[in-house]
Amino acid sequence: MSDTLRLQKETHVLIIGGGFAGIQCAKSLAGADIKVTLADRHNYHLFQPLLYQVASAVLSPADIAAPIRRIFRHQNNIRVVLAKLQAVDFSKQKAFFPNATVDYDYLVLATGVTHSYFGHDEWAGQAPGLKTLDEALEIRRRILTAYEAAEWEADIESRKAKLTFVVVGGGPTGVELAGALKEIASQTIPKDFRNIDTTTTRIILIEAGTRLLSALPEQLGEKARKDLTQMGVEVRLNSPVTNIQNGLVSIGEEQLPAENVIWAAGVRGSKYAETLGVELDVQGRIKVLKDLSLPGIKNVFAIGDLACVMDQKTGQPVPGVAPAAIQMGRLVAENIKAELTTKKRRTFVYRDKGGMATIGRNRAVASIAGLNFSGFPAWLVWSLVHIIPLVGFRSKFMVIFNWIWNYFSVSKSARLITGRPPMNVKEALPVTPPVKGQDPEE
Amino acid sequence: MSDTLRLQKETHVLIIGGGFAGIQCAKSLAGADIKVTLADRHNYHLFQPLLYQVASAVLSPADIAAPIRRIFRHQNNIRVVLAKLQAVDFSKQKAFFPNATVDYDYLVLATGVTHSYFGHDEWAGQAPGLKTLDEALEIRRRILTAYEAAEWEADIESRKAKLTFVVVGGGPTGVELAGALKEIASQTIPKDFRNIDTTTTRIILIEAGTRLLSALPEQLGEKARKDLTQMGVEVRLNSPVTNIQNGLVSIGEEQLPAENVIWAAGVRGSKYAETLGVELDVQGRIKVLKDLSLPGIKNVFAIGDLACVMDQKTGQPVPGVAPAAIQMGRLVAENIKAELTTKKRRTFVYRDKGGMATIGRNRAVASIAGLNFSGFPAWLVWSLVHIIPLVGFRSKFMVIFNWIWNYFSVSKSARLITGRPPMNVKEALPVTPPVKGQDPEE
Repeated sequence: MSDTLRLQKETHVLIIGGGFAGIQCAKSLAGADIKVTLADRHNYHLFQPLLYQVASAVLSPADIAAPIRRIFRHQNNIRVVLAKLQAVDFSKQKAFFPNATVDYDYLVLATGVTHSYFGHDEWAGQAPGLKTLDEALEIRRRILTAYEAAEWEADIESRKAKLTFVVVGGGPTGVELAGALKEIASQTIPKDFRNIDTTTTRIILIEAGTRLLSALPEQLGEKARKDLTQMGVEVRLNSPVTNIQNGLVSIGEEQLPAENVIWAAGVRGSKYAETLGVELDVQGRIKVLKDLSLPGIKNVFAIGDLACVMDQKTGQPVPGVAPAAIQMGRLVAENIKAELTTKKRRTFVYRDKGGMATIGRNRAVASIAGLNFSGFPAWLVWSLVHIIPLVGFRSKFMVIFNWIWNYFSVSKSARLITGRPPMNVKEALPVTPPVKGQDPEE
Repeated sequence: MSDTLRLQKETHVLIIGGGFAGIQCAKSLAGADIKVTLADRHNYHLFQPLLYQVASAVLSPADIAAPIRRIFRHQNNIRVVLAKLQAVDFSKQKAFFPNATVDYDYLVLATGVTHSYFGHDEWAGQAPGLKTLDEALEIRRRILTAYEAAEWEADIESRKAKLTFVVVGGGPTGVELAGALKEIASQTIPKDFRNIDTTTTRIILIEAGTRLLSALPEQLGEKARKDLTQMGVEVRLNSPVTNIQNGLVSIGEEQLPAENVIWAAGVRGSKYAETLGVELDVQGRIKVLKDLSLPGIKNVFAIGDLACVMDQKTGQPVPGVAPAAIQMGRLVAENIKAELTTKKRRTFVYRDKGGMATIGRNRAVASIAGLNFSGFPAWLVWSLVHIIPLVGFRSKFMVIFNWIWNYFSVSKSARLITGRPPMNVKEALPVTPPVKGQDPEE
């Protein structure tokens, strides 16, 4: 079947996580005399950079998610498992899933990061984060329900709180969400409501640090702040959130009445990483060696957002972005294949492709190959860069169509309130808004 | 402001339900010297005839649902409320919502029907019905999860039960779902699974009566049966379901092991209709007079599926189909407007536009204007008839695109498992399938 040198019996590589890193690693193992198992707790690969557009009702889930089985239908050496990893025994080379134990020769951990509330997990109920499709649909549900509730709220102060959106965290997700929320309030829905003036909606972007978009050059962070401010978003820098409770967001002594809070502030490694008994950095990411393997555990790798590895050029940690994840996935696949021959493992060298963030219609900032630019050119480049890597022609087409539609009609196509409030979350908004009498507007 | 004759102070029409009937009634009241309130428990109007395609992962929710506010953004005399009706006081002309009471001059009840388990509500958990978007997403989740669970089930009998889908009810929804399930099993996913042969999936369509599609001419019901059988669907006529429990579907003495059951058998009027103290037919629908008002309550109407009214030509009840709902909505709007002038109320005359059902690729049956036809022509007509009335250009375009895509690629674009199992439902399938060891296929 294969003419390649076969030094051992068929090798089994177990990859945990179907994000950018895991998918690329599995793809790069195609054709090798290796058996691959890819396990994920979801049945789809999610194009996370566009997730905020599902939350803001521009895109549908199917536009930015592709079934993992579909991606690998023509790759014969892989099997896909819908299962959540529970534990690993490194010495026995076993991974434990509910009802099953899987032996591996190589283990690749690529489960990404989750929200970090900096020790205040009790904020999660009132300030959901945006990492999964279900979270995006939940945030969409809250945004749309807030306007419905405000429309029938007779009390002025309470109505103002319902029309106040706070986004915590001035990274790309926070900036993009704040811009999208402002567009919804000022362009998409004003004509749809009779009692409230949705253009008075307050959108507040709160950042603990001194600037927005800290991963990009300072001038672009400042440009983003100016653009957002010009659009009507209130940008608050140097404002660490100290509490979120009962519809109030506290910044030190100050209390902002805001019933809608979205958390885009911090991430930490998947929780189970803490149970592995390996060394983590302060953000809970797994510290890896230069070949991306775990210290002392040569046949286990961590890649993608979950891995903490230093950029040899800058001395800083490699950022948690898709290109880095893809590069890591590819390298680990090559390093595993190298073991089957006599090749040596290679060292991870991060190739920084730059960064960008979109702010609104025709507004974005980008830093590519040392070139910093903004406005319409950056917006166009941002759009292209986010279309090209989407899996499959259909998704590309759908996203392009929805963007063009959204651009010219200023309409959000996916403005549907679906689903139920999460079970474990204190419901911040009533599903059915209070109607305070027949004619609240009179 | 208006030159029209105004016999009384501004009249308030309260419409409950944003389905075909309620939407049409509100639209037909546009421009009249009438104030309209349209209340629905969802923020969108759902194009229910295509709901089964959301369940079968062809379409996304946003393709077939339009925000009600959006529909009426240019109609000035209407306000939209997201609220669920709780009770009505006919004598005081008041409708009660959570936290609010609304006075009305005219009340139009258009809340449709819900599933009827014929006195066995305990079946609901194992056999969800298909009336709402959330139900469609839940059925989609179950269908996709079933294959994931079967892929890793080592026990042969248990695997067979996981690969057995029972659709109860041989009306259009049941026929269309059974056909779609067969297409998924035999065309969409066979290449995606490694351990199971999805083409061996059993799809069983169970009908208590003597034939399928009882609302259509007998020859078309027979044609549908033949088409489905040829596609590989097991059609069981004269088979009333007597129990659904613990993964078993009972038809008298016979017990079918089937872990996936979808209920498309019976409907009954919305539950609150029972609390109104008005006369209902055996299906719990409100009996109305010829002008669609309730007997003895001249200013309250029932329209759409919720109304039981006789077709004057056939002597049979008017069927619960979209054209009938639209016709009723229009008539009631005219009858209300007539009261503002000196015109008399008109009698409802049902104009039967025929009926149709799609079975699969290039297969459908249709009966239009006395003409019965099937196969590709019927399929084409079915497609056109279901595209034209969709709200908005975007939805039309999206549905057409997804159909063409699905037609040529045999791929289901929306194959995503999202959401959580319902809170009040016994979970029939594990979200995480059991993995019985490293190499179940060996």
